[in-house]
Amino acid sequence: MANEFDLIHRYFSPLAGPEGLGLGDDAACLRVEPGFDLIVTKDMLVEGVHFFGDDPASSIAHKSLVASLSDLAAKGAMPKHYFLGLSLPSDVSDEWLAEFSDALAKLQDQSGIRLAGGDTTRSLSGVTVSITAMGTVPEGRMLRRSSAQVGDLVFVTGALGDAALGLKCLEEEIEPDECLIARYRYPEARTALGIELASFANACADISDGLLADLGHITAASGVGADVNLAEIPRSPTVRELLALAPELESCIYSGGDDYELVFTADQSKQDDIESLCASLGVPLAAIGCVTEKAGVRLVDQNGKLVHTGRSGFQHFET
Amino acid sequence: MANEFDLIHRYFSPLAGPEGLGLGDDAACLRVEPGFDLIVTKDMLVEGVHFFGDDPASSIAHKSLVASLSDLAAKGAMPKHYFLGLSLPSDVSDEWLAEFSDALAKLQDQSGIRLAGGDTTRSLSGVTVSITAMGTVPEGRMLRRSSAQVGDLVFVTGALGDAALGLKCLEEEIEPDECLIARYRYPEARTALGIELASFANACADISDGLLADLGHITAASGVGADVNLAEIPRSPTVRELLALAPELESCIYSGGDDYELVFTADQSKQDDIESLCASLGVPLAAIGCVTEKAGVRLVDQNGKLVHTGRSGFQHFET
Repeated sequence: MANEFDLIHRYFSPLAGPEGLGLGDDAACLRVEPGFDLIVTKDMLVEGVHFFGDDPASSIAHKSLVASLSDLAAKGAMPKHYFLGLSLPSDVSDEWLAEFSDALAKLQDQSGIRLAGGDTTRSLSGVTVSITAMGTVPEGRMLRRSSAQVGDLVFVTGALGDAALGLKCLEEEIEPDECLIARYRYPEARTALGIELASFANACADISDGLLADLGHITAASGVGADVNLAEIPRSPTVRELLALAPELESCIYSGGDDYELVFTADQSKQDDIESLCASLGVPLAAIGCVTEKAGVRLVDQNGKLVHTGRSGFQHFET
Repeated sequence: MANEFDLIHRYFSPLAGPEGLGLGDDAACLRVEPGFDLIVTKDMLVEGVHFFGDDPASSIAHKSLVASLSDLAAKGAMPKHYFLGLSLPSDVSDEWLAEFSDALAKLQDQSGIRLAGGDTTRSLSGVTVSITAMGTVPEGRMLRRSSAQVGDLVFVTGALGDAALGLKCLEEEIEPDECLIARYRYPEARTALGIELASFANACADISDGLLADLGHITAASGVGADVNLAEIPRSPTVRELLALAPELESCIYSGGDDYELVFTADQSKQDDIESLCASLGVPLAAIGCVTEKAGVRLVDQNGKLVHTGRSGFQHFET
């Protein structure tokens, strides 16, 4: 394989904007427009933990960048720049690198984010991807986790559980389904909606650890609680069919991660505006519950009975 | 060990500035002062490649952050924020984490940089540290690699070779020497000088890959070359003694990495000012050569004879 500088020149310099100085220097020089805050998020994805070694390079690249774009969407930020740290085994092939960088290029075109810098190193085993992504919001307008209000409605975009069930397909726990696998491998970030939501939502998070876990981050940070109606959690037709046959998989829709949908809370008076906004952007929307005074997130069935959820989201280093 | 959120709360939240939102959100919110550019650099350090698994946790933390501080110094930037990506084996101990975070705290106090966010994940083997660091420079004043001028003098700070020889001690290639090992494990970034140099230097880089390699990055980016006098390259007393006994190790002073000194070029008319500046900051300075029209970096001995240097710096993925 090429040496480090050739590799950067061949695969990554074409992805860089002018602020990245062609990736020929040790740093990037960014100018933030006056009147804007810079929102910064960092994610680290490790082979064997966040993805499989034999996942397509395009999926590894796509998921890594979408995880960051989704964090920016949850903050209401317009994607701007990202920095890519890549630790690669010495036998990585040109084909792998070409597929990886092509997937980044495609997502750059869709989202408007541009590569501004990074670091490429050897690893002793497996691939590690670290992305630091930046976006901008008008000063003081970042969407937070910590401002949910008692009485707010809880909304969620898209449909949940597809990615977690896609992972189960790859782990051969269930019959393979191309739609589910594609949702796991090539998720989308709700960028356009996130930017607009800053005007309507009180608190927002993206669903990477699972609905209950990520809503739990909002309620904990806001000093409130939430009731969620199980029946209202949106499911894709594929998931609906699958759960009809295998109801024991239902926890995937509230505990499964990697869907990268948004969960947010907003005052009831904003519901019409939010529904119009989502309709105009073609984003499915569901009101799934409400914010309560009582701490914690409670999942209830159609009869108002508490559903036992067990483990509610993905954590590293569990005791 | 604690779970991911406890771990962040216990070891890393105390390091965070207000812009990091206590590390309780998925992103940080930064405001760049009007009239300043934001300089961003990213480094990735991998166990077995950049450090040894049995290196002290304090050294791994220190070297990781200094690598970034040194990049900022080479750009003339005032250190502000950093984001820490940490991939850890599941058996990492509380003692290791305490030592690691203490070392970061100490370096934060010395440099003024603050933790603003990050990501902590499990690894299947070994530690990977990824740091994205940010500093500010007055608009348009970033020091670059690409503006060296023919006729400039080439300067270098401190003394070179200590870190590379410290590494040889740890690899048991030479007799252990505590001074050299300490220079390898706990290097310093030339932060204060870098900030001031923006007024005097034409081009600058930090020496992480080796003097000839990093000066080579400057000359290549500037479309010039350089002649370096071997005898002028500054050596510490320890290195001087060692080379008197083992002259075959001399290449460490021009090809050895990890010293994190600065190499820069400046017009001859600035020499007095630069010498005064370095004296006032207590930074040793040496003029080691000059910038030429002819491309490439040439190392010459006292008689003007070209020194054969062989491999000139550290690269990943060499062919």
